[in-house]
Amino acid sequence: MIIVMKRKADQQELDNVIERIESAGYKAHVSKGTDRTIIGAVGDERGKVALKHVETMPGVDKVVPILAPYKLASRETKEGNTVIKVGDVEIGGPKCVVMAGPCAVESEEQLMEAALVVKKAGASMLRGGAFKPRTSPYSFQGLGEEGLKILARTREKTGLPIVTEVMSSSDVELVESYADVLQVGARNVQNFVLLKKVGLAKKPVLLKRGMMTTLEELLMSAEYILASGNDQVMLCERGIRTFETAMRNTLDISAVPVLKDKTHLPVIVDPSHAIGQWKFVLPLAKAAVAVGADGLLIEVHPDPEHALCDGAQSLKPEKFYKLIDEIESIAKIVRKGYAQGYGAH
Amino acid sequence: MIIVMKRKADQQELDNVIERIESAGYKAHVSKGTDRTIIGAVGDERGKVALKHVETMPGVDKVVPILAPYKLASRETKEGNTVIKVGDVEIGGPKCVVMAGPCAVESEEQLMEAALVVKKAGASMLRGGAFKPRTSPYSFQGLGEEGLKILARTREKTGLPIVTEVMSSSDVELVESYADVLQVGARNVQNFVLLKKVGLAKKPVLLKRGMMTTLEELLMSAEYILASGNDQVMLCERGIRTFETAMRNTLDISAVPVLKDKTHLPVIVDPSHAIGQWKFVLPLAKAAVAVGADGLLIEVHPDPEHALCDGAQSLKPEKFYKLIDEIESIAKIVRKGYAQGYGAH
Amino acid sequence: MIIVMKRKADQQELDNVIERIESAGYKAHVSKGTDRTIIGAVGDERGKVALKHVETMPGVDKVVPILAPYKLASRETKEGNTVIKVGDVEIGGPKCVVMAGPCAVESEEQLMEAALVVKKAGASMLRGGAFKPRTSPYSFQGLGEEGLKILARTREKTGLPIVTEVMSSSDVELVESYADVLQVGARNVQNFVLLKKVGLAKKPVLLKRGMMTTLEELLMSAEYILASGNDQVMLCERGIRTFETAMRNTLDISAVPVLKDKTHLPVIVDPSHAIGQWKFVLPLAKAAVAVGADGLLIEVHPDPEHALCDGAQSLKPEKFYKLIDEIESIAKIVRKGYAQGYGAH
Amino acid sequence: MIIVMKRKADQQELDNVIERIESAGYKAHVSKGTDRTIIGAVGDERGKVALKHVETMPGVDKVVPILAPYKLASRETKEGNTVIKVGDVEIGGPKCVVMAGPCAVESEEQLMEAALVVKKAGASMLRGGAFKPRTSPYSFQGLGEEGLKILARTREKTGLPIVTEVMSSSDVELVESYADVLQVGARNVQNFVLLKKVGLAKKPVLLKRGMMTTLEELLMSAEYILASGNDQVMLCERGIRTFETAMRNTLDISAVPVLKDKTHLPVIVDPSHAIGQWKFVLPLAKAAVAVGADGLLIEVHPDPEHALCDGAQSLKPEKFYKLIDEIESIAKIVRKGYAQGYGAH
Repeated sequence: MIIVMKRKADQQELDNVIERIESAGYKAHVSKGTDRTIIGAVGDERGKVALKHVETMPGVDKVVPILAPYKLASRETKEGNTVIKVGDVEIGGPKCVVMAGPCAVESEEQLMEAALVVKKAGASMLRGGAFKPRTSPYSFQGLGEEGLKILARTREKTGLPIVTEVMSSSDVELVESYADVLQVGARNVQNFVLLKKVGLAKKPVLLKRGMMTTLEELLMSAEYILASGNDQVMLCERGIRTFETAMRNTLDISAVPVLKDKTHLPVIVDPSHAIGQWKFVLPLAKAAVAVGADGLLIEVHPDPEHALCDGAQSLKPEKFYKLIDEIESIAKIVRKGYAQGYGAH
Repeated sequence: MIIVMKRKADQQELDNVIERIESAGYKAHVSKGTDRTIIGAVGDERGKVALKHVETMPGVDKVVPILAPYKLASRETKEGNTVIKVGDVEIGGPKCVVMAGPCAVESEEQLMEAALVVKKAGASMLRGGAFKPRTSPYSFQGLGEEGLKILARTREKTGLPIVTEVMSSSDVELVESYADVLQVGARNVQNFVLLKKVGLAKKPVLLKRGMMTTLEELLMSAEYILASGNDQVMLCERGIRTFETAMRNTLDISAVPVLKDKTHLPVIVDPSHAIGQWKFVLPLAKAAVAVGADGLLIEVHPDPEHALCDGAQSLKPEKFYKLIDEIESIAKIVRKGYAQGYGAH
Repeated sequence: MIIVMKRKADQQELDNVIERIESAGYKAHVSKGTDRTIIGAVGDERGKVALKHVETMPGVDKVVPILAPYKLASRETKEGNTVIKVGDVEIGGPKCVVMAGPCAVESEEQLMEAALVVKKAGASMLRGGAFKPRTSPYSFQGLGEEGLKILARTREKTGLPIVTEVMSSSDVELVESYADVLQVGARNVQNFVLLKKVGLAKKPVLLKRGMMTTLEELLMSAEYILASGNDQVMLCERGIRTFETAMRNTLDISAVPVLKDKTHLPVIVDPSHAIGQWKFVLPLAKAAVAVGADGLLIEVHPDPEHALCDGAQSLKPEKFYKLIDEIESIAKIVRKGYAQGYGAH
Repeated sequence: MIIVMKRKADQQELDNVIERIESAGYKAHVSKGTDRTIIGAVGDERGKVALKHVETMPGVDKVVPILAPYKLASRETKEGNTVIKVGDVEIGGPKCVVMAGPCAVESEEQLMEAALVVKKAGASMLRGGAFKPRTSPYSFQGLGEEGLKILARTREKTGLPIVTEVMSSSDVELVESYADVLQVGARNVQNFVLLKKVGLAKKPVLLKRGMMTTLEELLMSAEYILASGNDQVMLCERGIRTFETAMRNTLDISAVPVLKDKTHLPVIVDPSHAIGQWKFVLPLAKAAVAVGADGLLIEVHPDPEHALCDGAQSLKPEKFYKLIDEIESIAKIVRKGYAQGYGAH
């Protein structure tokens, strides 16, 4: 950490700050400039009480943290990419993995129909919600355990691994007993009790960035899961909230290369939730593959107009087949240098 | 809901939309303009499946919702103000209520010292966290049930009612057995499982707005609690996340009068978390009272420089006494017309 | 426009609103619902005084505009794409056009060196600033007219058309006499005096979106230029300001397809300014092409480490050659269906 | 500036950075920590080429600026408050100054009627626009010089000094010849050509923060004016753009104390433009006074329902009289300690 003193700070104020730094277990390196004195607090910022409160001491202008606050999620800890295996599927490897399906499991017929579309298109995993986080208490909240059972039966029939959301720490064991990948939703990205609990699970976790989450906070939430013992975490960009209202959320496409620079964890993009309108999902999916995403999460529904949830952003089957075709051509170009290029860092 | 057709939409497209609206249980009122045809979908938007997906139909330009999606929280449902009683304290009444205390319960001595300051200043309630939501898994996470016990013993000795946070649905009963008011934190504002659970509690709930929660979403989260049967909900503005980095968060002071216009629930302001630096807490607290807040949540610590949490924003006792003096003078001016004025709406 | 009445509005209030609507030259269509009465104000919202102030009348809940406020920029006015010709270069046509060069013109040598790189790579146009809008009055402000002369001489030697910024209405004629395309910068996107003035120019205008300009406002700014008589306008997404600080700005990649849906004007992307770090420019440029951008604006500098402006985001020549190669492969895939596909709408 | 090296940076990379720092005219102070080496670049960051581009050198993790980039606007340069005199009115002194009037000058009658209300209420200055920056080219753009003449005649009759906007550098002399205070609007806050030009004027400048402007950028824009020779600058907070759509903009009330901590310039608040609805102007005006604003800018219109501009947010006379009464009572409390307290810093 760096402590910047005010221009008119006197020696006594400087001494007090140094004493405080040292009593917190850091070494103090003082550097006097033309205008200001700055003090480096040397020591691992993450293992000790933070020095943020030094900012309130007389004579102090500001405190600037130097180290990223996460460890296990950092590329400085692990240089190679984390590759997560779900059955035969590898997430974070040379292939850009497509996970698709309806927003919510509505019935056995609806899910099977969607699953067949997903499988026919050549996508790798089936997604669908049994527990649905809805803004309104009056909206459809999902089928619960019955939805999980339908997911499991559909996996048996199609061979597609299942990604589904867990909304509460008390449901983690239940969901884990049915799902292949546990999804933590955007609204729960800082539900720390839930993060600790999925950190104890044996299944991989797909962690969605919240609408208001900085990349650093997202990595800190991943750190909760990693620190609890589960090292199978993939991150998912799904749009952030900005001043722009022309689309549902603003897809932060830059998050993909920036995250891949900072962390070894795979990064997925969910264009459907970000944009909220099916007709823009295809160009955004292409952009996501081009920018280097390790996977896509796409909403597909056999009959979007009668969907109980998020129909406006769900693709019909024929649009989905077109999407898969186009992104595969792009993936061939951008991921060919995978072994030596960006993907492998 | 209003459906706006595209300029070149044809009769067939119009008929299809009308059919869809009517099959969803609404009546369709068609109105042909110079440029466009618009269709009013008449019926309670909140009781039926939303028509948002109509936006994807051929010929449709956009769908505009007309009604606020919340009912129980709305002033249209209840015109008078909700006044919440906690012992002798009335929140939402003529007095602006101050709830103060340290960010986290650290020890019996620390909490008692803080409580005596709160009581001496004439504030009404004691706040302090036993379960702490922290961005980093390596930060102090609170004393848990031991913290709740310290809170309860401090209440016995001082008579101050206790506000404390509950982070997980599985802890609601435990926290309720000790606390007078259950706080739901900003990061859990859309933890719907938790909202439903505190909706079953018999104690009032203080619901904090998330850093990126719209006022409508905040009211929808309150609606979850109200719809579960608990009508003792107070809302709390604590700063939102914007592009500005000169302060921790941007206190959305306008949220107070706008919320009081839309809802009958009391509105509290937490300037300490919003601004993150103690020296700006006093002017913001005065602004909050002046704008019409029903209460303040203030961080006070007997020794902020050694606090385990949020020391930079905690007031020392002497600053807190000054704050209480100044806000009382302002409250006398702005709340005098309470019975006939803004407060009473 | 739609006027939504309050639930308890009485007949007198309704009559007053109707009278106001009609006196403003609209027809009023009243539609009584279960819960509310809504009134459609029928007539061209753009030609008349807006009815926003009706919102302040007793009994009125809210006023909802229905029509987009721009006309000339809208696809409803012109369905085909606007294609802008600059010499042999077509912007908005089948090719994705690359405009590249240094942030600022520093000297004849520097610009020529950059221009040769741009030409060798096969890019189409040279960009470089003679007038530089800088946040600090102490930063390099550009060479002014001398910079324009250097640009013109470099064009003569290389044949590359020139894009350069005009910062003030009083400089429009000067800049127009040297440049092939007039750039209006992000900070001037709502400098209406400047917009009107470039609307009188005979050269095409590249209009950059501001850091906090909505797409609707961007289209309104384009409308100023179009309404002044200049129909050669291209829009440029260059990153918006959000809460995220991990990168300089957040590239709003979705703006491309959403704009192309609303307007016939070409849409360019500037990944260099958006992200602010050269190492992320390549993946973002690929994403921009994949999403359907009609062109790219890229910062290239022969010696970024000694650039007077924006060195951190400028590509070195070899990186730029690589970029051009990769985006051409992607362009071949995404723009092949140009004639019948997205680009042509 | 502080340069933080990557954990695995080697000695050669370190040496290269040191060489670069020194060749730019700074001294390098190297400090080796447990995890990282950091280098302090000692020297005035504002007088030299910034070192931001060092961030792109091999082995460098990040570059952290230490000094605020403004000088003349800083409290470190001038400790006492700047007090601006306009006739008998002092802005930045013990009194909270109210500047009020209609959004636009529409006619001599309308302005005189508004001026009489302003004067009767005891407010200090008259505001009104002759040049109006409007999002739409089809909206009323102001009366131009005729409006300036009306303003001047109204001043003669009432004695109220005049605040009015200048939109273009080429109009500065014209507007200066009529106005007492030159307003630079939110959309021109980074129109650097205009800033330099009003910096040459002899009249005080009211500089409005843009919807997207950070406080640091606002101070840099003030620095442009100060550096051009005009030291009579007052800043104005008028709401920023955030994700919240329940009000027009988000009034950043914290900006007032934070700015007053950083700068000696007076700070004004414009609640009318921030909130956009008259019924919320009163509580926000009270909050602005309570938080320590040196003045208020309020829209008042004799007949808001027929205003050509911003009628929805304009107060009627009787509401304005009430506002003045209430804020005076609050000002008495919060500004009484002016000489020794916050105001005087």
